Amino acid sequence: MDNCRPLILISNDDSINAPGIHFLADIASRLGDVYVVAPATPQSGQSAALTVNSPLRIVEKPSTNENIRIFTVSGTPVDCVKLALNAIVPREPDVLFSGINHGSNSGVNVTYSGTMGAVLEGCMRGIPSVGFSLLHHSMNADFSLSASFVKEIAEKVISHGLPTNVCLNVNIPAKVVPSGIKLCRAAIGHWTDEYDRYVDPSGNPFYWLSGRFINDEPEATDTDEFWLGKNYISVVPVSTDQTAHGVALGIDF
Amino acid sequence: MDNCRPLILISNDDSINAPGIHFLADIASRLGDVYVVAPATPQSGQSAALTVNSPLRIVEKPSTNENIRIFTVSGTPVDCVKLALNAIVPREPDVLFSGINHGSNSGVNVTYSGTMGAVLEGCMRGIPSVGFSLLHHSMNADFSLSASFVKEIAEKVISHGLPTNVCLNVNIPAKVVPSGIKLCRAAIGHWTDEYDRYVDPSGNPFYWLSGRFINDEPEATDTDEFWLGKNYISVVPVSTDQTAHGVALGIDF
Repeated sequence: MDNCRPLILISNDDSINAPGIHFLADIASRLGDVYVVAPATPQSGQSAALTVNSPLRIVEKPSTNENIRIFTVSGTPVDCVKLALNAIVPREPDVLFSGINHGSNSGVNVTYSGTMGAVLEGCMRGIPSVGFSLLHHSMNADFSLSASFVKEIAEKVISHGLPTNVCLNVNIPAKVVPSGIKLCRAAIGHWTDEYDRYVDPSGNPFYWLSGRFINDEPEATDTDEFWLGKNYISVVPVSTDQTAHGVALGIDF
Repeated sequence: MDNCRPLILISNDDSINAPGIHFLADIASRLGDVYVVAPATPQSGQSAALTVNSPLRIVEKPSTNENIRIFTVSGTPVDCVKLALNAIVPREPDVLFSGINHGSNSGVNVTYSGTMGAVLEGCMRGIPSVGFSLLHHSMNADFSLSASFVKEIAEKVISHGLPTNVCLNVNIPAKVVPSGIKLCRAAIGHWTDEYDRYVDPSGNPFYWLSGRFINDEPEATDTDEFWLGKNYISVVPVSTDQTAHGVALGIDF
């Protein structure tokens, strides 16, 4: 590896065994030296969770690309990024990419997304950070249709960086060559019919997460949901500062 | 229970076995009918993680207070709130409280906080939601010094509600009677020296989360860190909308 080339840290939440992260690493390896540091096991829905009460292991895996080194961490996406920065990468990465996730992280799903958990962590550490997600859950999803767009976004972020405390949430329509890229905002929405109820052989109920996402503002033309519906790639700038600045609470303390 | 009294949903991340949630439930039971729906096991650092790939169980526990019903869920704080709303409470709660957490959730810690994960979930469902955290990790922490302030905040939120998509992150100084309540913003900061490295009996390294929080703006006088340092309770309004509205990216797509 070469200190003059950008150092690119890559993680995800679908684990080292998901095709999406290797597709992303291959694209990134044309732009710089790549460290893949991914969860050893699937971590979908892990948000920005971190492992507090148990130890973490790092394991290096074989790589067939001389520009890519591959490691697993026995934890969450945030654990991967934190341990990468503390114990794996030889210097501060120039950029962090997460994904490509198998499944959407548009709208409010950013809140639950392990893919975006890794991105928030990188951003809070001052690293320009981007999450990529394809709107297709299958492990056989075709990432190649959007390859040129992913490379374009990656190159631009490496060249220009990102504002302090701002990262990007990129979602990609499935099964089409995207019509283009749109900068937009996250649609406000919610999940409904969230659990399927079952009864076990002893007669006791148990519950399994299910549900449908409802876009609460289907008429809005500036949201990720709107542009994804028109086969565009959505790029939403996300702030790591969660304070609702300037809001009028209507309560005196 | 009485349909004319407010219905109060309470969760946390320290689990049903932590004193803080029972202290909060006791205060709330003077203001309304309380449903405690808490994780069966500790969930610190679980952020807004949810359980995707395994089933969830609900168990009702005995209560000695006729205004409090107590349930556990075999998952995360977000799982607790989602399952409470889908399968436990008899009607939409008027308010959600989370905590009282044993330990700080000020500054950037809101990102990792399971206490605040429950609060974000309630807020996204349209319920006025407040997280309470005491700056003391001990299971023997003294919550009584701030009881009147917690009750005041709870009463005001029940009376006035909160703006759409805005919830509150309340942090409480430890070992003092607080000097008062201050509405403020989350301090920008970061963690450093994040892992302790060990070597197991076979000679293989493992890592355990550790570290210190660094306030990156110690001179600012409008942050939670500043006011907590002066023994005030900090109240930070938190937005569930993570889009960085109006930011200039400096990149054309």
